[in-house]
Amino acid sequence: MSSNSFGKLLSVTTFGESHGPAIGCVVDGCPPGLALAPEDFRNDLERRATGRSRHTSQRRETDEVEILSGVYEGLTTGTPIALLIRNTDQRSKDYADIAERFRPGHADYSYWHKYGLRDPRGGGRSSARETTMRVAAGVIAKRWLQQRHGVRVRGWLAQLGPLTPAAFDWDAVEQNPFFWPDAAMVAELESWMDKLRKSGDSVGARVNVLAENVPPGWGEPIYGKLDGELAAALMSINAVKGVEIGDGFAAVSQRGSEHRDEITPQGFLSNHAGGVLGGISTGQDVLASIALKPTSSILIPGRSVNVRGEPVDVVTKGRHDPCVGIRATPIAEAMVALVLMDQALRHRAQCGDVAAVTPRIPAKP
Amino acid sequence: MSSNSFGKLLSVTTFGESHGPAIGCVVDGCPPGLALAPEDFRNDLERRATGRSRHTSQRRETDEVEILSGVYEGLTTGTPIALLIRNTDQRSKDYADIAERFRPGHADYSYWHKYGLRDPRGGGRSSARETTMRVAAGVIAKRWLQQRHGVRVRGWLAQLGPLTPAAFDWDAVEQNPFFWPDAAMVAELESWMDKLRKSGDSVGARVNVLAENVPPGWGEPIYGKLDGELAAALMSINAVKGVEIGDGFAAVSQRGSEHRDEITPQGFLSNHAGGVLGGISTGQDVLASIALKPTSSILIPGRSVNVRGEPVDVVTKGRHDPCVGIRATPIAEAMVALVLMDQALRHRAQCGDVAAVTPRIPAKP
Amino acid sequence: MSSNSFGKLLSVTTFGESHGPAIGCVVDGCPPGLALAPEDFRNDLERRATGRSRHTSQRRETDEVEILSGVYEGLTTGTPIALLIRNTDQRSKDYADIAERFRPGHADYSYWHKYGLRDPRGGGRSSARETTMRVAAGVIAKRWLQQRHGVRVRGWLAQLGPLTPAAFDWDAVEQNPFFWPDAAMVAELESWMDKLRKSGDSVGARVNVLAENVPPGWGEPIYGKLDGELAAALMSINAVKGVEIGDGFAAVSQRGSEHRDEITPQGFLSNHAGGVLGGISTGQDVLASIALKPTSSILIPGRSVNVRGEPVDVVTKGRHDPCVGIRATPIAEAMVALVLMDQALRHRAQCGDVAAVTPRIPAKP
Amino acid sequence: MSSNSFGKLLSVTTFGESHGPAIGCVVDGCPPGLALAPEDFRNDLERRATGRSRHTSQRRETDEVEILSGVYEGLTTGTPIALLIRNTDQRSKDYADIAERFRPGHADYSYWHKYGLRDPRGGGRSSARETTMRVAAGVIAKRWLQQRHGVRVRGWLAQLGPLTPAAFDWDAVEQNPFFWPDAAMVAELESWMDKLRKSGDSVGARVNVLAENVPPGWGEPIYGKLDGELAAALMSINAVKGVEIGDGFAAVSQRGSEHRDEITPQGFLSNHAGGVLGGISTGQDVLASIALKPTSSILIPGRSVNVRGEPVDVVTKGRHDPCVGIRATPIAEAMVALVLMDQALRHRAQCGDVAAVTPRIPAKP
Repeated sequence: MSSNSFGKLLSVTTFGESHGPAIGCVVDGCPPGLALAPEDFRNDLERRATGRSRHTSQRRETDEVEILSGVYEGLTTGTPIALLIRNTDQRSKDYADIAERFRPGHADYSYWHKYGLRDPRGGGRSSARETTMRVAAGVIAKRWLQQRHGVRVRGWLAQLGPLTPAAFDWDAVEQNPFFWPDAAMVAELESWMDKLRKSGDSVGARVNVLAENVPPGWGEPIYGKLDGELAAALMSINAVKGVEIGDGFAAVSQRGSEHRDEITPQGFLSNHAGGVLGGISTGQDVLASIALKPTSSILIPGRSVNVRGEPVDVVTKGRHDPCVGIRATPIAEAMVALVLMDQALRHRAQCGDVAAVTPRIPAKP
Repeated sequence: MSSNSFGKLLSVTTFGESHGPAIGCVVDGCPPGLALAPEDFRNDLERRATGRSRHTSQRRETDEVEILSGVYEGLTTGTPIALLIRNTDQRSKDYADIAERFRPGHADYSYWHKYGLRDPRGGGRSSARETTMRVAAGVIAKRWLQQRHGVRVRGWLAQLGPLTPAAFDWDAVEQNPFFWPDAAMVAELESWMDKLRKSGDSVGARVNVLAENVPPGWGEPIYGKLDGELAAALMSINAVKGVEIGDGFAAVSQRGSEHRDEITPQGFLSNHAGGVLGGISTGQDVLASIALKPTSSILIPGRSVNVRGEPVDVVTKGRHDPCVGIRATPIAEAMVALVLMDQALRHRAQCGDVAAVTPRIPAKP
Repeated sequence: MSSNSFGKLLSVTTFGESHGPAIGCVVDGCPPGLALAPEDFRNDLERRATGRSRHTSQRRETDEVEILSGVYEGLTTGTPIALLIRNTDQRSKDYADIAERFRPGHADYSYWHKYGLRDPRGGGRSSARETTMRVAAGVIAKRWLQQRHGVRVRGWLAQLGPLTPAAFDWDAVEQNPFFWPDAAMVAELESWMDKLRKSGDSVGARVNVLAENVPPGWGEPIYGKLDGELAAALMSINAVKGVEIGDGFAAVSQRGSEHRDEITPQGFLSNHAGGVLGGISTGQDVLASIALKPTSSILIPGRSVNVRGEPVDVVTKGRHDPCVGIRATPIAEAMVALVLMDQALRHRAQCGDVAAVTPRIPAKP
Repeated sequence: MSSNSFGKLLSVTTFGESHGPAIGCVVDGCPPGLALAPEDFRNDLERRATGRSRHTSQRRETDEVEILSGVYEGLTTGTPIALLIRNTDQRSKDYADIAERFRPGHADYSYWHKYGLRDPRGGGRSSARETTMRVAAGVIAKRWLQQRHGVRVRGWLAQLGPLTPAAFDWDAVEQNPFFWPDAAMVAELESWMDKLRKSGDSVGARVNVLAENVPPGWGEPIYGKLDGELAAALMSINAVKGVEIGDGFAAVSQRGSEHRDEITPQGFLSNHAGGVLGGISTGQDVLASIALKPTSSILIPGRSVNVRGEPVDVVTKGRHDPCVGIRATPIAEAMVALVLMDQALRHRAQCGDVAAVTPRIPAKP
């Protein structure tokens, strides 16, 4: 089983380097009969796209998805869906001077030691360019989840360096380039980022994703748990250094009487669990959070070595995001959606015959 | 592929319920020729065992491992290694009154909705009893890693509720029932836990695991990354709500100039990355942290519903740990070791021919 | 994923050596709610058992299955079902003299070269003893297929050396130790086998398995085809050297006008396809055949080498079947049943929503 | 894990329909450093290509492979290798009249029942067009096997309807459009095929593949055996109805004294086993044979039903091969090569440390 594949029944295989001819993916296992057209991918790809604002990399690509297979007369057929995006804005010369030196904090050194050679152009396979195909695959999962189960998956930027939202409004999230839920703070973020960019440095971020209306029962103990697979999916995103479900690390200092979510026939009274108990969804909203590190591609010189082990200084030129977390929201949404759809199919396989045994408790009273 | 299996080349399949006849596992893919005997499992199983101190569940079992297959004349043969432990201290009557009511914060409700029936005795499959077999399987991985690659995997309790160690000493860790690295604080922990237990409540914890001497090159981008698989492995442990690699969530508010680990020919100058870049080990120490929630098995009554959806109050009787995190250290170590051994084998498969291309940078100067 | 595991959603992992303490398996993915008890395994294990007649190995074991997990109050719970059988009739001394010499036609030499060591007692892991657990796991699949889909899987011995049945009667199959469908020939087989056994030689056999009432739609193109997975499953049985679906090798000299199965609303007019087209079941009966080689464990001396590469003569002592094909019928049935159940679950996962689009054509007019 | 993927460590995922925009594959797990260029694919694709002679379908495509990823400066990088071939000679109108009727002996009916809809153009996903990508992927495996292990994989047409070669000469195989090893018979085959084509009928065939110089030790008991995986790989090829290893079904009537391959220090004295014992290679040549059915796409009308279950007559127009077996030789070679390379990598993972314990016996004296 390919290490560039993800998912057991809804299986996504991605390929492509940042500056190769194309990137793409194969999505296998999607049920037949789902309406799907190239334009369905536009919104999420645009949300992820570079060039959306001055706060992200200025690489500009249209990122038009070509559907190569698996769709006939506008409907999925049950055969593998291959999606292709041509790379059109490569500037490989930008990377010539790092071909022989390892940027600190980057995958240069680890790739080199693993494979004995590497494609240095734009980070090659380790580039965030690969996440484009996650977003594309995630579009299919989001559509199926919404249409088949009424599940809605959406995320927001929950922290940018030291800044956290003072208010929360879903409507605000899509109306600013940060996916920030507090419209009143957007100007502050803009100026904060301008200052950061001028300093040549970068900063970390936190992204949250919420899935609403997930039915109870999704997730496969013990090693295919819903939260375990969310953790794998989210940790595989570039720059992610931490994953939380529900209260996450805050649970370390909580008491059991505080953390456990009490239940009434009218609904769960809280959601510290983040919608997962024993690795299986409870019917509460599923909440996942990720920590994204500050990118190592900064203008401030850093000490490193070259391929011969000699000391060198490295400055990262090229086009880079001072906060990779800004564009991570649609990527994280996609991974959550892919995991949920995979689990939904797995649940149907094993437990498709199980009759409802007990009234379903609402997510909230 | 079984959802009760873990690992691609070193594959562990566990089975068994808390109060069934036995628990066990099958470890497949271990190279032949590794010396292995039943007594090799004793130390780690004792470290994990219930009954080690008054701060953990009073269930008492000898947990003697029987090797059913895969070992001949004291050496692994390359065929699957089956390990079996009989359950000997079941008290199923303790659980009779929760057969029809869902303990809040437990997997009762989610299992019931998934499968339409469940084994309520001691939590059945969702019990932490299953982690015994992770520890047993981990023993094999630890031995192989140590003997073949000189890799050492060990962990400690890094936070207990509000308490954090004021000092760090590896020697202290194994000399108290908490795996606490600060010997001077052990008395404080004892009295803190006594008070907690008397209150009938529980508390969360943080466990760290460090793997030293991991060579660069282990980990398979993009969906078999070392950190991604660590996240999956660790999040699958009962009660875990968060996973961090290296600085984890602290990276959210860091700058790139601070986070990136600069490199000199004499060694890496820091380890914010936790030993993983681009999903591949760097030769730095691999550091993973987990957040464990406070167990929901407490003596303080909580609101819930029964199988008919009627409101009930639940008090958890039976034997329970007021802090499940205390016993989590050997479990987390085992999962890290299993992931590392699996990745070592995968690396050898694909890159076993790669000649050393560049001097290996020491973990520290 | 373990190489000792079989199946994607219904996953079977077996372990154990011929003369180790026990053999066993873990069956994962079985839907919850299936009635299952230790006595359900008796009939098929007895059908496979050594010692059923004088024509098979005289190793005598009761082969009582212990259910270690996954069943609660007589019903499967959806968690992994572990089955264990203790080995009780080992006579390891029989094998002492072959520990250092490779029996020609056996796995001795190939195991030794692969692993660098091996358990020589009774063939170790390569013994047909392992197939006991296939039969046990197959019992679960047969029960589920019968109860959930009305599918019936049964086989017969279709050729024994030069002998083929002159008549076919399902009732006869279970009434003789050969699974032979022609009662009138049983005496002839008995004397033929007596003569063979006295000659110290062995002979090959062909076993057929038929699955009736399989609905159309099972099987996953392109690399999870029903016939592809049947081939993998059946070829993995000890001594199998060939697999056919439907007409198999007879199709080589057929014309298309003869081979294609014409269809009428009243039913398929023939079944050359063996119930599979494009890797998907058609609703015709699924027919699979296997060729079993003559066992290499014979009393006639053969040339070989020892572990030092020196020439030696080998005579196989111990208890052996002069025709391993005689006991293969329940094993082949089990593998077919396991593949079908796995495919049924996979079909439900992806296509559980597909409405019947077209009248189902009966298997026969 | 995708059902359109094949292989555990060398993993091939194919996609594409006969008359969609393109077909392609993703090959993951190839070791880094293998030289690979688009022109390397030409020879085998030409060998498989339609239009090679008047005896195969007249669909004409150049089948130029584009390497989309995984190769940098002419060498594989260890990242997934995506290969793309545009479909350029679709004539979808040929298939309009079979959109609503099921061709007997084709996958039309089974696909329709499985998915509820299908792409009828040229058979969609069930077309032999998919095998183009197997051949392309196989090129990579053949190159690696040859360069790394000196293994050579090549095949021939061993039977065409009633005709079998009277002589065997490797040189002849590549010098006629049938891959026929007996040059003296080629004229006879030509006239036989001309007559068949005029009759509007089709015929079956047998293809053999031989892999020379395979070292002992490849193959993973019990469910990842070399022969089991060969069977799965070969049975997944369109039109294949049977698979044999070594003597295959001939073993049914053999004696053990005849079948077992005796061993001398100078070499194996025979090769009835086809190079595999206990699922592991022995160092003998690996021999696999397949039976291909006569295609159901013939000009002779056949009875069938349409999507409404009504009786119809079907004549297959369009471009079709009267003997699909003629072009199957490179496809079968590719599958054998892919299985062998996968097993080589798996063997290295688990047993890469095993020291040679015993002299290797030559394949032949």
